[in-house]
Amino acid sequence: MVSIPRGFRDFPPPFMILRKRILKEIEEVFKRYGFDPFDTPTLEFWDTVKGKLGEEAENKLMFIFPDFLSKEWYTLRYELTFPLARYMAMHPETPLPFKRYHIGKVWRHEEPQKGRYREFWQCDADTVGSPYPEADAEIIRLNIEIMRTFSFNKYLVKINDRRLLTGIFEEELSIRNPVPVYRSIDKLDKIGEEGVRSELLSKGMSSSLVDRIMDLMKIQGKFEEIAEDLSGIRNEKVRTALDHLREIFSLVNDDRLVFDLSLVRGLEYYTGPVFETVVKEPRIGSLAGGGRYDKLIGLYSGKDVPATGISIGIERLIDAGLELGIFSLDDRSYTQVFVVSVKRESWRYAWKVAELLRNEGFYVSLDLMRRNQSNQREYARKLGAKIIAFVGPKEEKEGSVTLYSNEMRKTVSLKDAAKAINEIIS
Amino acid sequence: MVSIPRGFRDFPPPFMILRKRILKEIEEVFKRYGFDPFDTPTLEFWDTVKGKLGEEAENKLMFIFPDFLSKEWYTLRYELTFPLARYMAMHPETPLPFKRYHIGKVWRHEEPQKGRYREFWQCDADTVGSPYPEADAEIIRLNIEIMRTFSFNKYLVKINDRRLLTGIFEEELSIRNPVPVYRSIDKLDKIGEEGVRSELLSKGMSSSLVDRIMDLMKIQGKFEEIAEDLSGIRNEKVRTALDHLREIFSLVNDDRLVFDLSLVRGLEYYTGPVFETVVKEPRIGSLAGGGRYDKLIGLYSGKDVPATGISIGIERLIDAGLELGIFSLDDRSYTQVFVVSVKRESWRYAWKVAELLRNEGFYVSLDLMRRNQSNQREYARKLGAKIIAFVGPKEEKEGSVTLYSNEMRKTVSLKDAAKAINEIIS
Repeated sequence: MVSIPRGFRDFPPPFMILRKRILKEIEEVFKRYGFDPFDTPTLEFWDTVKGKLGEEAENKLMFIFPDFLSKEWYTLRYELTFPLARYMAMHPETPLPFKRYHIGKVWRHEEPQKGRYREFWQCDADTVGSPYPEADAEIIRLNIEIMRTFSFNKYLVKINDRRLLTGIFEEELSIRNPVPVYRSIDKLDKIGEEGVRSELLSKGMSSSLVDRIMDLMKIQGKFEEIAEDLSGIRNEKVRTALDHLREIFSLVNDDRLVFDLSLVRGLEYYTGPVFETVVKEPRIGSLAGGGRYDKLIGLYSGKDVPATGISIGIERLIDAGLELGIFSLDDRSYTQVFVVSVKRESWRYAWKVAELLRNEGFYVSLDLMRRNQSNQREYARKLGAKIIAFVGPKEEKEGSVTLYSNEMRKTVSLKDAAKAINEIIS
Repeated sequence: MVSIPRGFRDFPPPFMILRKRILKEIEEVFKRYGFDPFDTPTLEFWDTVKGKLGEEAENKLMFIFPDFLSKEWYTLRYELTFPLARYMAMHPETPLPFKRYHIGKVWRHEEPQKGRYREFWQCDADTVGSPYPEADAEIIRLNIEIMRTFSFNKYLVKINDRRLLTGIFEEELSIRNPVPVYRSIDKLDKIGEEGVRSELLSKGMSSSLVDRIMDLMKIQGKFEEIAEDLSGIRNEKVRTALDHLREIFSLVNDDRLVFDLSLVRGLEYYTGPVFETVVKEPRIGSLAGGGRYDKLIGLYSGKDVPATGISIGIERLIDAGLELGIFSLDDRSYTQVFVVSVKRESWRYAWKVAELLRNEGFYVSLDLMRRNQSNQREYARKLGAKIIAFVGPKEEKEGSVTLYSNEMRKTVSLKDAAKAINEIIS
């Protein structure tokens, strides 16, 4: 029996119609915020990625394979940020800031489950060139606007700053390399507090150090109050991060932006603010995440260029939205008008009517199976066509068409058909 | 130095803006003809493809590789027809006819050159379920409509029928397996008449047989005249093909549809009519091609389902259109309005104005680099923003914005800004 690889999907029309509508709405917000479209190859050299995305991605999740024809090692792109960094390194002439959005497929060797696939779409928006908090704030406003577009009200945008954590770890806990700690903390939602605690202990940390880390991780809430508490820490990184965050909070100016010191995010390349949008009601978890990565482009070109961005997790948005009844798969076809030929001898007239309506811009189908009238109607019903246009010998003789919808039935001349259809549709 | 694989491409905004516009226009025609969107995995099991697409594709052009994590052999999809056939075999419950369009990337290990890449987009429309010429005719009308959309006037849609060739070869030349002959004939444009002739001779055919094949290949022109000439051949396949073609010619009813007995098309799965659209002026060659494949789905399911379709070659369309000046890369950004803050102290007001205009639906950017006014204007000019919205202390004080375009300069209150911008844009 023929099949497709695990975690990969076919998308028949009802799924694609929904997906395209959602992507279009996200794209519209990207455009309003001044981002422009961009695409990169789905295959990158494995050498381009190696050492950039962290152990788990590179050892367990990435599709890496030899190409026998070119004798090269390729990867299917794991995400959309490193290709942007690679592009910027190859094109230093690009005017800055470079604000691009990228809607495209990515591939990860995950264990498939609801909202998680091996091939899925990501929707990213990134600003390259600006080191300033206004660039981060703009990305977060865009994020909020997307939540509004999909009518989510109960959500939080959690924010933290990698420099804040690094500074506190350095200053207060004498931890010089925080990356292994981040990796454990990032699993807080997955493995819980006890899980993180035992992972940190297994990394050789003392029980009292782990206690202090776990206490820090509970710091969340109103930014100004926490900033006040942390203002006593005399560390350059902590001070820089607090100033940067303060400006973001001031510009975004929305109560749903909250500070959370336990937010670290998994990817290794973040260098400043990191953020994540969590929907509380309905309970569908994290829908978007991102942050600042001022050193990633430098890994390719030797010259750092500041950058910040966000990724919208549309698979979870779609799967959760479908489960909750926010979205539906009811639109099975774009077809607006199905031309039914009442008798076979009217079929050529139906063909003419279909062509005429297509020239008027309508989405039109007609019988291609030489079916009788009732089977044509049954098929049109399955498509969900709003209007059925009947043509028989009578219509052919008088140059008319009989339009039929849920609300009405009406015979009109061909020259009035477009107007009548527009009235029904609108 | 970092790079991307040969034959693969990055698409910065000017390229994506053009590409998206072209794809949208093609998609609109697909929708008008009653086709619905569809997608499939970019990876398929190698077993799914093996033996279906012909020697050259499978031995020389296809990306085939082992996946070390799943221990499976995958291919990057070579084209969009076999995934549809595979889908139909897996979903026999799909209501027929199933009319789907598929716009997606495909991968071929070609030698890169203008209009030819290793990763490129295909735009396919196919009708599954109908064995009748009306399904082929609808696809060809759609093809003609796409040519009209892009203002091509001097083109021909060449058509032939595999059954016609097979029948003539059987009846007149006693050739039982025509596939190797098709393969050579398909190269007529590439290697010329002499090339085809010597290839056929090298396949062991007699010189007189090759002469007769080459004479047949010159048959092209008005269908009815040729049908008359061929009507003497008493072969079931020939008769069926002529009846089928006659009905297509009658329904399409366009002088640009011409008969050409040398048209065979490379892919092995065609079983009936094959067609190809060739642009004569400007001379950019074949832009679309397709045909009927009534046996491909049966290769997967054991049960034949008739199908016919077309593929639009948009890479050649874009590359040729750019070279000829039909298309341009002048649109560098979607940005309509760039808000310039005349002095740094006006920046927060600029942020507020940008947010307000974004809420009105405009595509808006503002300075994220803390630049002075003239550098902001220089950047806005590079983006190609139609309107610059200046804000300074004066504007902030009176709650206004000064709009500037090629045609005018005007200070308006914030509440009148949207209306004024709409007037400039339209």
